[in-house]
Amino acid sequence: MMQRKIEEILLYADSEKNADMLYFGGVFVPDPFIALTQGKRRLAVVNQLEFARVRREGRFDEVLPLEEVLREARSASGQGPAHPASTIAFLARELGIGGFRVGPDFPFGLGLKLQAAGIALEVSEGPLFPERELKSGAEAACIKAGNAASAAGFRVVEKLLREAEIRKGQLYHGGRRLTSERVQEAIGRACLEKGALAANTIVAGGDQACDPHCRGTGPLRADSFIIVDIFPRVMQTGYHGDMTRTYLKGRPSEAQKALYAAVHDSEQWALGEHRSGKSAALIYRKVMERFESGGYPTKREGNVPTGFIHGLGHGLGLDVHEPPRVNAEGARLRKGQVVTVEPGLYYPGLGGVRVEDVIRIDRGEPELLSSHPYRWHIR
Amino acid sequence: MMQRKIEEILLYADSEKNADMLYFGGVFVPDPFIALTQGKRRLAVVNQLEFARVRREGRFDEVLPLEEVLREARSASGQGPAHPASTIAFLARELGIGGFRVGPDFPFGLGLKLQAAGIALEVSEGPLFPERELKSGAEAACIKAGNAASAAGFRVVEKLLREAEIRKGQLYHGGRRLTSERVQEAIGRACLEKGALAANTIVAGGDQACDPHCRGTGPLRADSFIIVDIFPRVMQTGYHGDMTRTYLKGRPSEAQKALYAAVHDSEQWALGEHRSGKSAALIYRKVMERFESGGYPTKREGNVPTGFIHGLGHGLGLDVHEPPRVNAEGARLRKGQVVTVEPGLYYPGLGGVRVEDVIRIDRGEPELLSSHPYRWHIR
Repeated sequence: MMQRKIEEILLYADSEKNADMLYFGGVFVPDPFIALTQGKRRLAVVNQLEFARVRREGRFDEVLPLEEVLREARSASGQGPAHPASTIAFLARELGIGGFRVGPDFPFGLGLKLQAAGIALEVSEGPLFPERELKSGAEAACIKAGNAASAAGFRVVEKLLREAEIRKGQLYHGGRRLTSERVQEAIGRACLEKGALAANTIVAGGDQACDPHCRGTGPLRADSFIIVDIFPRVMQTGYHGDMTRTYLKGRPSEAQKALYAAVHDSEQWALGEHRSGKSAALIYRKVMERFESGGYPTKREGNVPTGFIHGLGHGLGLDVHEPPRVNAEGARLRKGQVVTVEPGLYYPGLGGVRVEDVIRIDRGEPELLSSHPYRWHIR
Repeated sequence: MMQRKIEEILLYADSEKNADMLYFGGVFVPDPFIALTQGKRRLAVVNQLEFARVRREGRFDEVLPLEEVLREARSASGQGPAHPASTIAFLARELGIGGFRVGPDFPFGLGLKLQAAGIALEVSEGPLFPERELKSGAEAACIKAGNAASAAGFRVVEKLLREAEIRKGQLYHGGRRLTSERVQEAIGRACLEKGALAANTIVAGGDQACDPHCRGTGPLRADSFIIVDIFPRVMQTGYHGDMTRTYLKGRPSEAQKALYAAVHDSEQWALGEHRSGKSAALIYRKVMERFESGGYPTKREGNVPTGFIHGLGHGLGLDVHEPPRVNAEGARLRKGQVVTVEPGLYYPGLGGVRVEDVIRIDRGEPELLSSHPYRWHIR
């Protein structure tokens, strides 16, 4: 049993999918590699293909060539080690490290092998890097760049909808039916021009929009809400934007106007409520209450959840969804956290509305990291 | 201690990043969720946001609503459980399951908690689904669609290079310097039109191309090799294409012509060598020998690896890099495996050349899943 607290950190992941590794190393590597701390120093072990680039672009204090470490590990053990567990065990002995703290998502198979090799492992109870929640000014700027890509997407959506013709309740553009897919593609192009990749963009009309994670498919209709949720990743930095706007091409009914206003007003109200020290759960509950007292209850209709059926927001950064959560279980907000604010109401038949912006928490008014008008009604 | 072999499988992951989960469930879910087998049945537990969609689009035999399972688990235990470990433990008891097989990348934190809750876990030695290596005809078609997106990318690259003007050794297009970034953006647009997202596309010229994972930045030059490696993901299915072509705009030297020919000939030769039962390591070594006997040795020049400095190929599917590997440690090829064939030679000063196609292994000639001409020399 280890008596002293484990201070050193170990990661084994690629840095394209794993945000902790990108945060730690600051360089994109497509295949899993070893990274660890030794006191205040950050070390990486990468193969010869990555060596020069990781050394040049990463924020490691030392980069070791995997091939050499393997060779040394082999001659020390007298056998061909099954990389990576034996490589890490060899390194730990060389560096005088008895154990590591790892993230909850550290690979189980590797963890068990390291334990069997006598390396003590402590799994962090929450995230491996809790400080990832608090964004620096530079990180906020990266997220703003992501949201600028989202905004570029909304501009092309609005252009398409303005230019679209309505024939028998259907939308046509350039002589062809305007579909979710065509709009998603146009958004993708707009984001690319901003250096960002927009995966899984939501362009969902009618009752499709009542399923908040439905991407949307097929022809779009007039007089019906269309939810557009764009969360692109800036290729250079790995940070995401995440914004939502809702549109209606044609003529909204009174019920639709009222639904849009309820969501929009709640969003604008909630933006101002986010301050350090305030309970995220309380803000969420207050939005829920505003909706209820405004005649928009949240309840199951048969098997279908309706109303305000998701959280109010989530942390945003190198992952699209990261801590903190702003929902019924939300904790107190802290200065520097970057969160989305995205109330929504969903009633099959009437449609779905969601509006989403991004803020950085401060003691007073939060800093708005997203900016785009709310031109929901397109004639 | 469990005596009987553990037959049931457990996953806890999202299915956008985790290919095993997408393979198992056949539906995109952005946040981690529980999926498991009970005999031949596949079960998923998802929250109300995902419920209807996962039921409709996924390949699960049963989808359970997380909120209800949590409620039942709470009333059974008398306390608010810390999802997900206690939820899985509750479910396992309800379903009469004593243990699960999990993948090597199963989250370590969750694994330890499940073990503490009395659930036996066995980590698969290799991949959780070894059968993922062997692709069905439908999967091969998905990979072909990914490669069609790559090919669309090459077409726009060739158009840009044909139209480009050379001024003092630099490439200009539309009055502006032609850069890696501009070409990457044009490739991204072409892939989008094919319904695919091209992340981390490589457009690397000159000595940048000698670093095979360098994406490439800045102005492109005439009379110099430009490696273009496009591995887009088809949004609808999650399968990737992965193809590489190398270009030279201007006038190649004799040494450049010879280098290109050596790589191209080896690629064409190697394509035919891939058959079920053949040793992947042997094919890799033969390519290495062909290069060496042709005057293209692989060795370190100072600190820089030069020559044929990476593997010959890798499995391709829901992940860009997946088993099997075709390199010095490669095993025997099996019918149905889909692999890239991508020899390359890299000599700083002279430049880098790589050509990559994708095949499905068969008993005889492999099935080519990629198709695009080799128009390397652009005048």
